Amino acid sequence: MFIGEKKIARPFRWGIVGGGRTSGVGYKHRLGAMRDNTSFELKAAAFDLDFARCVDFGKNLNMDEERLYPDYKTMFAEEAKREDGIEAVDIATPNFQHFEVCKAALEAGLHVICEKPLFFKVEEGEEIKALAEKMGKIVCVTYGFSGFDLLSQMRSMIQNGDIGEVTMVDLRYAHGFACDPTGDKQAEGQKWRVDPAKSGPSFVLGDLSTHTFYMSELVCPQLKLKQLLCDRQSFIKSRAPLEDNAYVLMRYENGAVGRMWASAVNAGDMSSQHIRIVGTKASLEWNDMHPDELYYEVQGKPRQTLVRAMDYLNPEALEYERLGALHYTGLIDSWSNLYTRFAIAMDAKNRGDEETLNSLVYPDLEHGIDGIRWVLKCVESADKGGVWVDFK
Amino acid sequence: MFIGEKKIARPFRWGIVGGGRTSGVGYKHRLGAMRDNTSFELKAAAFDLDFARCVDFGKNLNMDEERLYPDYKTMFAEEAKREDGIEAVDIATPNFQHFEVCKAALEAGLHVICEKPLFFKVEEGEEIKALAEKMGKIVCVTYGFSGFDLLSQMRSMIQNGDIGEVTMVDLRYAHGFACDPTGDKQAEGQKWRVDPAKSGPSFVLGDLSTHTFYMSELVCPQLKLKQLLCDRQSFIKSRAPLEDNAYVLMRYENGAVGRMWASAVNAGDMSSQHIRIVGTKASLEWNDMHPDELYYEVQGKPRQTLVRAMDYLNPEALEYERLGALHYTGLIDSWSNLYTRFAIAMDAKNRGDEETLNSLVYPDLEHGIDGIRWVLKCVESADKGGVWVDFK
Amino acid sequence: MFIGEKKIARPFRWGIVGGGRTSGVGYKHRLGAMRDNTSFELKAAAFDLDFARCVDFGKNLNMDEERLYPDYKTMFAEEAKREDGIEAVDIATPNFQHFEVCKAALEAGLHVICEKPLFFKVEEGEEIKALAEKMGKIVCVTYGFSGFDLLSQMRSMIQNGDIGEVTMVDLRYAHGFACDPTGDKQAEGQKWRVDPAKSGPSFVLGDLSTHTFYMSELVCPQLKLKQLLCDRQSFIKSRAPLEDNAYVLMRYENGAVGRMWASAVNAGDMSSQHIRIVGTKASLEWNDMHPDELYYEVQGKPRQTLVRAMDYLNPEALEYERLGALHYTGLIDSWSNLYTRFAIAMDAKNRGDEETLNSLVYPDLEHGIDGIRWVLKCVESADKGGVWVDFK
Amino acid sequence: MFIGEKKIARPFRWGIVGGGRTSGVGYKHRLGAMRDNTSFELKAAAFDLDFARCVDFGKNLNMDEERLYPDYKTMFAEEAKREDGIEAVDIATPNFQHFEVCKAALEAGLHVICEKPLFFKVEEGEEIKALAEKMGKIVCVTYGFSGFDLLSQMRSMIQNGDIGEVTMVDLRYAHGFACDPTGDKQAEGQKWRVDPAKSGPSFVLGDLSTHTFYMSELVCPQLKLKQLLCDRQSFIKSRAPLEDNAYVLMRYENGAVGRMWASAVNAGDMSSQHIRIVGTKASLEWNDMHPDELYYEVQGKPRQTLVRAMDYLNPEALEYERLGALHYTGLIDSWSNLYTRFAIAMDAKNRGDEETLNSLVYPDLEHGIDGIRWVLKCVESADKGGVWVDFK
Ligand SMILES: NC(=O)c1ccc[n+]([C@@H]2O[C@H](COP(=O)([O-])OP(=O)(O)OC[C@H]3O[C@@H](n4cnc5c(N)ncnc54)[C@H](O)[C@@H]3O)[C@@H](O)[C@H]2O)c1
Ligand SMILES: NC(=O)c1ccc[n+]([C@@H]2O[C@H](COP(=O)([O-])OP(=O)(O)OC[C@H]3O[C@@H](n4cnc5c(N)ncnc54)[C@H](O)[C@@H]3O)[C@@H](O)[C@H]2O)c1
Ligand SMILES: NC(=O)c1ccc[n+]([C@@H]2O[C@H](COP(=O)([O-])OP(=O)(O)OC[C@H]3O[C@@H](n4cnc5c(N)ncnc54)[C@H](O)[C@@H]3O)[C@@H](O)[C@H]2O)c1
Ligand SMILES: NC(=O)c1ccc[n+]([C@@H]2O[C@H](COP(=O)([O-])OP(=O)(O)OC[C@H]3O[C@@H](n4cnc5c(N)ncnc54)[C@H](O)[C@@H]3O)[C@@H](O)[C@H]2O)c1
Repeated sequence: MFIGEKKIARPFRWGIVGGGRTSGVGYKHRLGAMRDNTSFELKAAAFDLDFARCVDFGKNLNMDEERLYPDYKTMFAEEAKREDGIEAVDIATPNFQHFEVCKAALEAGLHVICEKPLFFKVEEGEEIKALAEKMGKIVCVTYGFSGFDLLSQMRSMIQNGDIGEVTMVDLRYAHGFACDPTGDKQAEGQKWRVDPAKSGPSFVLGDLSTHTFYMSELVCPQLKLKQLLCDRQSFIKSRAPLEDNAYVLMRYENGAVGRMWASAVNAGDMSSQHIRIVGTKASLEWNDMHPDELYYEVQGKPRQTLVRAMDYLNPEALEYERLGALHYTGLIDSWSNLYTRFAIAMDAKNRGDEETLNSLVYPDLEHGIDGIRWVLKCVESADKGGVWVDFK
Repeated sequence: MFIGEKKIARPFRWGIVGGGRTSGVGYKHRLGAMRDNTSFELKAAAFDLDFARCVDFGKNLNMDEERLYPDYKTMFAEEAKREDGIEAVDIATPNFQHFEVCKAALEAGLHVICEKPLFFKVEEGEEIKALAEKMGKIVCVTYGFSGFDLLSQMRSMIQNGDIGEVTMVDLRYAHGFACDPTGDKQAEGQKWRVDPAKSGPSFVLGDLSTHTFYMSELVCPQLKLKQLLCDRQSFIKSRAPLEDNAYVLMRYENGAVGRMWASAVNAGDMSSQHIRIVGTKASLEWNDMHPDELYYEVQGKPRQTLVRAMDYLNPEALEYERLGALHYTGLIDSWSNLYTRFAIAMDAKNRGDEETLNSLVYPDLEHGIDGIRWVLKCVESADKGGVWVDFK
Repeated sequence: MFIGEKKIARPFRWGIVGGGRTSGVGYKHRLGAMRDNTSFELKAAAFDLDFARCVDFGKNLNMDEERLYPDYKTMFAEEAKREDGIEAVDIATPNFQHFEVCKAALEAGLHVICEKPLFFKVEEGEEIKALAEKMGKIVCVTYGFSGFDLLSQMRSMIQNGDIGEVTMVDLRYAHGFACDPTGDKQAEGQKWRVDPAKSGPSFVLGDLSTHTFYMSELVCPQLKLKQLLCDRQSFIKSRAPLEDNAYVLMRYENGAVGRMWASAVNAGDMSSQHIRIVGTKASLEWNDMHPDELYYEVQGKPRQTLVRAMDYLNPEALEYERLGALHYTGLIDSWSNLYTRFAIAMDAKNRGDEETLNSLVYPDLEHGIDGIRWVLKCVESADKGGVWVDFK
Repeated sequence: MFIGEKKIARPFRWGIVGGGRTSGVGYKHRLGAMRDNTSFELKAAAFDLDFARCVDFGKNLNMDEERLYPDYKTMFAEEAKREDGIEAVDIATPNFQHFEVCKAALEAGLHVICEKPLFFKVEEGEEIKALAEKMGKIVCVTYGFSGFDLLSQMRSMIQNGDIGEVTMVDLRYAHGFACDPTGDKQAEGQKWRVDPAKSGPSFVLGDLSTHTFYMSELVCPQLKLKQLLCDRQSFIKSRAPLEDNAYVLMRYENGAVGRMWASAVNAGDMSSQHIRIVGTKASLEWNDMHPDELYYEVQGKPRQTLVRAMDYLNPEALEYERLGALHYTGLIDSWSNLYTRFAIAMDAKNRGDEETLNSLVYPDLEHGIDGIRWVLKCVESADKGGVWVDFK
């Protein structure tokens, strides 16, 4: 059981770029990072393009006004001068700025936690990788749904052979919140998402399916994607070339196959993210609307519903258990689990503790780069008319 | 409300080929046809390859022993001689015999109810079509899951524009009952299914997905399939070239897209058949495990669960209502609805009542031929490596 | 597997009193009885108070017009004269006529299938019992929801100790279809239900909870009810003294306890009938909206969902299996199972086969009398202000 | 939307009694209180009976060692001496100490947040009430499940008449985690719960049903409980006179009725807490396993599933919305909502802002006293043999 006791000597001093008052994702970062006050402490921020709003917001969080900055460059420069300057930074801006901010952050000697989709090009990922190695820092990626205990259970059951050999990977992140195009013009957080200059070469593939693709990497680390084929659509025509819906078929090295459905025009669907792993003798299925239930279906046997926090789970699924059985968790519990691991990873990196770094399961730079590649390959396939392309 | 009162002047005298004691599907035909004793009366049968078993079985159904036949040819010949000979016949043999029996039946002047997948070639379908027209008979296809009241509701809601324009068709018939290959060698009803000579060019595409493909035609009659792409696998290697799993992507004339997952190796899944139709403003979803519930999801509104037999349904969904609200139905209720319509169609054909024939909604020869085409096109696409092929 | 082959030498010639065109329950009897045409054949009927409607209806069922009667007395008298007269009769009239028709039927030498609630007084039950014994006939009661395969599974699992010792019985038949009082005045089938002269001393206790109470007897035959306490309400005031809602608490001989909720004003609820049996180590739960699923919950283990027709079920749950796995059943399948057993019981009685009679599980006269007692004791308790009363 | 911005000028300095490393509930308090660091800051603690463990634990939370105390008396005394001493305290000890600690805390001039069941006697509640008034402090009660957004929705819909007049209140907190008596002797957190000296006059009535009873007060504030009747059992005999299972029937002033099922021996059940409010035209149902879904069932209309954070909800249900649609919450989100309101209430009390105090919806001292009365009346009824007793 994990009840907030410190896992590292002292919390990291931590800053944030973006994630201001009006942002979609900022609060999730703060809730995830600051849950226990033993992993991170929020010390500085460049919350917003609008500096006045940044200051007002930071003051309302009881932050030190002088550490609220107009932009990330100033923040990195000023914090570097302080003895108690930040040691890690969060990047929660729209996609197109991830790369430049990440680069600047590493150059400023900071560990980085970056939003997905990481960058626009694999080459950018490689450049950051080299830089991070040089600076001795790590880059974490906030695939925020991936910290649920039962995903750890899924991973360990698959590893233990509980479903036989994996044959299929069925993925879905398909909601309907962009059915209506009004938001494309009017909603802050939607406008940039349908602008290729800011969002990158895709809309829903990058915005949504990178999460679920990582989830498949998390639970089936042994699977290697060989080829994929994507058909993408812009049901709201003004969004073209960016897609608001995409179907992907996958083929893995070992003969397994898979599917992904990414959509923002799947009208009315509220249980957005699903993952089903089929094996030669059983399947496992999970969805993020009921994240504390995992369905284990052995062919020819009654379906079992595994529930979070129960003794019958594997140790991996109980390591971050905080609340006890019958006490159900939500998205923020997932983020907290991730942030705790981010802190452990940073600390291990600082201490040169490779063993911890290598055994810790969290979304790291490699997974972020896989996400870039995933988007690019899907777009390539779709733009060629929906043909099979090699993944690597 | 429909409570079994006759819809035609007198029940058809009806025979069956196949569907004997050990068969998988025979009882469903009898239950569907004989529910009310006002549509069909079972008078003759060539139930089985094993004649002794046929006789024993027929006697146990209290049938007239002299009308139990060793084979369909004898049956057609002998029955034709009787004043009270059969007027319609059911074909419930393995796939490879559908064509020859159907042809013989029509030549014998019988209406036909035939199992799916109808035949192996589109040309066979066309030949039968010409023959049926010449003989003034009809051919019905037992897409047995398609008679549920809430599928009629789905069809009428889509027609009424309740979901906006259709954008996506998500189909699934994916169970796991062939995960274990033992049955391929040992189970009567499985052996021929994995033998291309008897099953045709596919296993699950023909055996399963033809049902769900018809369902999509039923609820979205306006949609025209333009292109499809199929990737198929034989996870149990000995089944190759027949697939035990297949993924299909679809593109429709109007820009809508779709997916199908057909599988007999989706380990542990018990809610086999799903259909979700997405529109520009809402979606409808149904599955055959809970066939009396229809989910209506308008984007931005609470999900609604429509339930069979309730007053708020459209007239189309209440026409075959038999039991009243709170009384839930099962597969056989679906079959009964279909068989009642088959009888009405045959009767209309006999009477030359084109109006009835044209307005009646049931799986007819055209739908059967579409099913043949569906299988062939999927196989063609898959065998070319998973490429887009035109549907017509 | 049971696929309609005869279980008795020839079907019983069978008649019906009530259950006409406008009746709520008539079609269920016919569907249940005539499913296979190997148990019962409908030969005669006094369907209706309105004789013209009776005749019209019977003709539409292709019945012999001369065997359609104006009333049950005429039917019993005329049929008795025929060589091929009916051997069994169904009583599907409103409650207040059950006793007199049942008595007359037995006196006419017929086996009886009678609707619930059986009669108004326990003494009437005893009188009928003596008469039935004298005449060598049996009386079956149509607790029509009790024929589902998974209730047999529940019974056998409890018998096998799979849940430990039974500690609790939680019962519920609570819908909302009488929220609106309009039907009390306007709907044929509702009017008599709220008239004590026709319905008896209760409304929902008799109309609904007798079903679920029998279900508890079916799955826990070993439990003996010792005391009960009932609080009943007439939320629609004009219904008083008849209740439209009732809560009952139960105490069993062995220390187990239970609850029943009967209601016709549980607004909006569509999954009317639930039964949960709790034991010292596990529970079983079932509801009639999803009758092919049974939840087995062992404390400290994942919940299991057992599904109809699967090999892992006990033989008792597979004895009436007709359709194969993945093919889901509905209410009429339950009725058919019951009617098949009724036929077997009648046949055994005729043959003096006590062994079959004693081992066959079906709702018989004793269960019908228990239902009368249940209603009377609940009413007694409620009318005394909600106090504990002894059950026997 | 609420994203952690301060609602009060500065966070309260806050301490805790109990809730140490091994405790069941301690972490929930800290997570609830410290979510945003804008409502409370944990400054002092007497976490544990075992002082060494208290110190070790506090240090692991990065607390100031000198403010970790061996007992609450020392803590109150020492903190009172400090300029920056605590202003509020949490009582998370076993039940029997709530009263004395609460009294001491108020006397020390602290606001109090106290665990349920509040105390053992109504008189104790009255005494505390007088004391709190005298000291100008407030007492909050951690009915921790009551902070979910959709309970606010339920309350406002009922208030708006969306279900008509309330007729029934169906409550349930019934799990199976005490099926096995081993824990009674071996588990710290279970031992005192079955000891009347420490737990009070009841086990599950106090431990579980007080939560759900408060929930009914929360969503139906207008209902006044008039009479109740309770039957309680000790299925594990050694627990007597404390019950591990109880059934309660309720009668309200306005003619509405209700039921409660409290149990720790409801083997295998994982969806412990349910509340269904039935009205004359519709019902609302909620359970704590899927707390972001609310079922709204209008008789004669399709069931609606309302989901947290959607625009169609009432303002009351969106006031504490933090995450956006599709992002599901868990128990800790409920606790955080409560703790934010506790802080607002304390602040309002300090400022003499009666308007805020009166309009704020949170579990206060009166609700705590109602919980005491609920338990005592249930016990009284049960001990008299299960008879009706007046509630007030
Ligand atoms: N991991 C997740 O679950 C998740 C969820 C939502 C969004 N995201 C990702 O988070 C990122 C932000 O998305 P969002 O929905 O919060 O967007 P948003 O448009 O709602 O908010 C963006 C915020 O960043 C600020 N900002 C923009 N440029 C800035 C700059 N140069 N310096 C400082 N602040 C700047 C804006 O003022 C705004 O507050 C995107 O990359 C998105 O893909 C991830
Ligand atoms: N509509 C549905 O839902 C559904 C369900 C199952 C099967 N089917 C279809 O029904 C057909 C039969 O499938 P099944 O599962 O019952 O197969 P099966 O192997 O279980 O049974 C086939 C039966 O046909 C008999 N038979 C074979 N050749 C015959 C002949 N020449 N004359 C007389 N009898 C003959 C066999 O003796 C056997 O009784 C197939 O086309 C299948 O695709 C449809
Ligand atoms: N087992 C079940 O699931 C179930 C379901 C519904 C009703 N019931 C029971 O069935 C009985 C009938 O209920 P219903 O809902 O069908 O009632 P209903 O009012 O809808 O129908 C009663 C029918 O009986 C006919 N009838 C009345 N008196 C008659 C007489 N003396 N002779 C011949 N016909 C007569 C009426 O004309 C009418 O057709 C009741 O006892 C009821 O409790 C049982
Ligand atoms: N609101 C909820 O959802 C909820 C949930 C669980 C428990 N509770 C309540 O919380 C209280 C504690 O329950 P628990 O399950 O945590 O019990 P527990 O036995 O698990 O823990 C009790 C803790 O209190 C400490 N303690 C005992 N006496 C103390 C004292 N005098 N001074 C300081 N520390 C002391 C113990 O050392 C232990 O750490 C009970 O009143 C219980 O009813 C409420």
